[in-house]
Amino acid sequence: MQIAFIGLGHMGGPMAINLHKAGHKVQAFDLATAACEHVKAAGVQIAASGEAAVKGAEVVISMLPASQHVEGLYLGRDGSGGLLAHIAKGTLVIDSSTIAAATSQKVAKAAQAAGLAFIDAPVSGGVGGAVAGTLTFMVGGSDADLERARPVLEKMGANIFHAGAIGAGQTAKICNNMLLAVLMIGTSEAMSLGVANGLDPKVLAEIMRRSSGGNWALEKYNPYPGVHENAPASKGYAGGFGTDLMLKDLGLSQENATAMRASTPLGGLARALYAAHSLAGHGAEDFSSIIKMVQKKG
Amino acid sequence: MQIAFIGLGHMGGPMAINLHKAGHKVQAFDLATAACEHVKAAGVQIAASGEAAVKGAEVVISMLPASQHVEGLYLGRDGSGGLLAHIAKGTLVIDSSTIAAATSQKVAKAAQAAGLAFIDAPVSGGVGGAVAGTLTFMVGGSDADLERARPVLEKMGANIFHAGAIGAGQTAKICNNMLLAVLMIGTSEAMSLGVANGLDPKVLAEIMRRSSGGNWALEKYNPYPGVHENAPASKGYAGGFGTDLMLKDLGLSQENATAMRASTPLGGLARALYAAHSLAGHGAEDFSSIIKMVQKKG
Amino acid sequence: MQIAFIGLGHMGGPMAINLHKAGHKVQAFDLATAACEHVKAAGVQIAASGEAAVKGAEVVISMLPASQHVEGLYLGRDGSGGLLAHIAKGTLVIDSSTIAAATSQKVAKAAQAAGLAFIDAPVSGGVGGAVAGTLTFMVGGSDADLERARPVLEKMGANIFHAGAIGAGQTAKICNNMLLAVLMIGTSEAMSLGVANGLDPKVLAEIMRRSSGGNWALEKYNPYPGVHENAPASKGYAGGFGTDLMLKDLGLSQENATAMRASTPLGGLARALYAAHSLAGHGAEDFSSIIKMVQKKG
Amino acid sequence: MQIAFIGLGHMGGPMAINLHKAGHKVQAFDLATAACEHVKAAGVQIAASGEAAVKGAEVVISMLPASQHVEGLYLGRDGSGGLLAHIAKGTLVIDSSTIAAATSQKVAKAAQAAGLAFIDAPVSGGVGGAVAGTLTFMVGGSDADLERARPVLEKMGANIFHAGAIGAGQTAKICNNMLLAVLMIGTSEAMSLGVANGLDPKVLAEIMRRSSGGNWALEKYNPYPGVHENAPASKGYAGGFGTDLMLKDLGLSQENATAMRASTPLGGLARALYAAHSLAGHGAEDFSSIIKMVQKKG
Repeated sequence: MQIAFIGLGHMGGPMAINLHKAGHKVQAFDLATAACEHVKAAGVQIAASGEAAVKGAEVVISMLPASQHVEGLYLGRDGSGGLLAHIAKGTLVIDSSTIAAATSQKVAKAAQAAGLAFIDAPVSGGVGGAVAGTLTFMVGGSDADLERARPVLEKMGANIFHAGAIGAGQTAKICNNMLLAVLMIGTSEAMSLGVANGLDPKVLAEIMRRSSGGNWALEKYNPYPGVHENAPASKGYAGGFGTDLMLKDLGLSQENATAMRASTPLGGLARALYAAHSLAGHGAEDFSSIIKMVQKKG
Repeated sequence: MQIAFIGLGHMGGPMAINLHKAGHKVQAFDLATAACEHVKAAGVQIAASGEAAVKGAEVVISMLPASQHVEGLYLGRDGSGGLLAHIAKGTLVIDSSTIAAATSQKVAKAAQAAGLAFIDAPVSGGVGGAVAGTLTFMVGGSDADLERARPVLEKMGANIFHAGAIGAGQTAKICNNMLLAVLMIGTSEAMSLGVANGLDPKVLAEIMRRSSGGNWALEKYNPYPGVHENAPASKGYAGGFGTDLMLKDLGLSQENATAMRASTPLGGLARALYAAHSLAGHGAEDFSSIIKMVQKKG
Repeated sequence: MQIAFIGLGHMGGPMAINLHKAGHKVQAFDLATAACEHVKAAGVQIAASGEAAVKGAEVVISMLPASQHVEGLYLGRDGSGGLLAHIAKGTLVIDSSTIAAATSQKVAKAAQAAGLAFIDAPVSGGVGGAVAGTLTFMVGGSDADLERARPVLEKMGANIFHAGAIGAGQTAKICNNMLLAVLMIGTSEAMSLGVANGLDPKVLAEIMRRSSGGNWALEKYNPYPGVHENAPASKGYAGGFGTDLMLKDLGLSQENATAMRASTPLGGLARALYAAHSLAGHGAEDFSSIIKMVQKKG
Repeated sequence: MQIAFIGLGHMGGPMAINLHKAGHKVQAFDLATAACEHVKAAGVQIAASGEAAVKGAEVVISMLPASQHVEGLYLGRDGSGGLLAHIAKGTLVIDSSTIAAATSQKVAKAAQAAGLAFIDAPVSGGVGGAVAGTLTFMVGGSDADLERARPVLEKMGANIFHAGAIGAGQTAKICNNMLLAVLMIGTSEAMSLGVANGLDPKVLAEIMRRSSGGNWALEKYNPYPGVHENAPASKGYAGGFGTDLMLKDLGLSQENATAMRASTPLGGLARALYAAHSLAGHGAEDFSSIIKMVQKKG
């Protein structure tokens, strides 16, 4: 199958490479030359432009940083036309960027008007999952479009969830990541309080993991150094899912909550704490480094 | 084995009955006659007083509402002597009340001075676990004392964790329950936000359960009605673990955090939200009813 | 002076009337006929359309509910042209709506391109201030444009602050109102905690007012019933500044904080608490009714 | 009048000196020799012990760090007798320490049983106010006892508030200081958000001071450097009221709120943020340095 892949960053790069390895004919493009070089070195063909990449493609995949980039790419910006006009009728467009659900819906509407199929399919699993091809996709769109996308998604991910209609993939992701931030901070507080009282961090972690406090962070991503040997906390908070990326996702969840007039006291506080953590200089560290905020410096 | 059991409330009553059923000679006591009657009906022998209950006992177990009751029972109050003076040297005292770790340590010190062994062994698992004999015990004390207690605890519970030295059982419990409150509120926010955006609650719950937002509430105790058939949320928030009991445990965690000068932003906010929920009249409902605070009033 | 006034709601209506009373020739317009009738009864001339209202006007004033209305009015929506094209070059446009600073800047840019002067001039002071002509204006724009607007603004308000360049009026207002929400909730908590401990509300309010807890709410708008005879709290929380209006302003502040990656832990929590208060059915009550959230339900 | 003064720290020292300067015969005592030396140098007579200090005193004043010190002083500790037994019947005891209201009530009860009069009279105003004799006293106790204390208090302070019965002075103080912490953080957030949007800090501060966001911090203690020339913010956050002292007072307010099952969402969050600020190494800086948490690290 011929696939156009737009956006070759830390996530998009390895995703495109996995599609190439699986035997698909991938035409990739990114405005940043350095990103293209990295992917080219893995044997993927680099197109000269977005328009060139989508020529002849049966499926178009995009993986971009934020709402304005996706809207700019497909619908155009400042008077310049968007990519949608260059994609052949009937093509399936898969946007895997994490962006506002409202933007997904806006782009989908324009895509459908142009005779294209569209699904939003943001991912979780981080760079590690992108490289290993074990990402989780949260998909918004019709059953038929998802089934059409499935063989392609399966080359990049291990779990594919159908969240609902267009935009639902984005909503599921921001709900999940808001909850993830809350349980990471909550776990950090509980671990720190227990240790301050003299408990052994491994013992406390194991008790809570097997009790009603059990959650994903206690299972495999404990923020306390030394509890999980392979977690970022045990490697100086390097790698993993960065504080600034979590802050971006929390921003999307709060934009949505604000627009919906929804009440998210812990989710909103989590955003403010991650913003403070980033302001204090920890933006590039793994998001589990938030535990530093509730521990004695030193 | 002869066992004295003091405190026959919703938790203590079924615990004493399980020990009796297991063949132990139980001498039970509670200041409330009604509580005694219930246990007596199950065949347990009722003592005339605490002093009478502990006479000849090899193990003394207490299950009382709060710190001041445990301190009053063992050390005495307002000039009246405490029960410790009436317990034979060498006896093992197991306090299963959920109280301040500092109080456990104070009572333990006095018990040891009187030649007694002492462990703190608060439980989780609720009334259901107490009746079924499947409680989780979080134990603070020496290895030797825990091993001595184990055969007795195993008649009442399914999991026994050794948290550390005396008081560590209490600390582990308040850390766990603080984290539980945080993830219950966080899950409530995420579910409500997703549903406000049009997602199906069961679909969203399943996606997050299998993703990085996964936690105990999503596993078996979803606060959204209808997701888990047997959860309190699907039964009008009846049964389960009451809002006011959660508020009590959050109070203990905040007392401890305050004394330790620890920072628990989400844990402290969880306490304030449960306090507001109780003030609004939901104190007797299951603690998962906190989701009502972030949903449109029906 | 001939003035066009667009938007005749609870705020805009009395503002237009005050300009009329001051001797200006006002041409007013609102899409809602009822709003027009009310203003017409006071002697103000009603125009048949926005275009008709601005014909011959030296100053155009708008007072609309939200960003999308202001953008729609001046720039047009869904292909229909905006009002800017109908306003004579050199005219001064004053937008007194409370909207996103980014929208003010966008409209200002288009206005300037069309040869018009523009300032953002959101107000505080509520309906009472609009009727009495004692509003506070927070103005963004050039010194020259503000001086040109001053004689008109003085007919509607008692205080005119120059906050900075275009958009700065909006920013000053959301900063102020975020702080107002925080101090109203904080005052509610302090009053409730003191009264729960047996203190007399008037005595406590007076002590804090004259101490370092002193703030605007303690000065004239105490949320505890009976402390200030004329405050909404003493009148069943009727009148004043509604919970849903405060929620809107807090939404604007959080949109801005999210876009800026700013950390506003108390401001964000205030938004979540006002959202919960609105969900619980208190949206139409004065915003000081938030004290109900931290008090035992009557 | 002969006055015993116990506790000669940063606050107690200058208070004792002011009483001496006013012509009273002061017998002062502190366990720390250094504190005594400082006061002795100002001409105050130093007693050899607490018992010696109260001998012949008509009024006894204490100014100690925390609840346990006050209880230990007057009621004794670990079996040793307390100072109450050494004070002549009829003497007035004034405790100006900031401690738990419950401790004030406990000591007052014992004092009354010993034939003494007692009032709690915690202060605000900081070291500057103590030196200048311009402290604010918040008094709990009877009218008669307050009138008896007034001439003495007036030598040390400028404002004397009668908050209510015994313990009410303490309650008023923790309510006030909880509110102060909330408005200081809220003001920090509003100032930082405005400046991030390009506003001039002095202009924004002045607009909010004169609007509904007005509060004590905007009046004279702005946390943004350079707005108030004499505020700690303009002097590297030196002097003033330290972060760790604010954290202590917030701890007292949260102990009380927890015991009362009161809901204080902003007050509780303020405590957690100050605890994090102290953990990050800012404990000795003025409490307005909390603004650093919501600003980009320099």
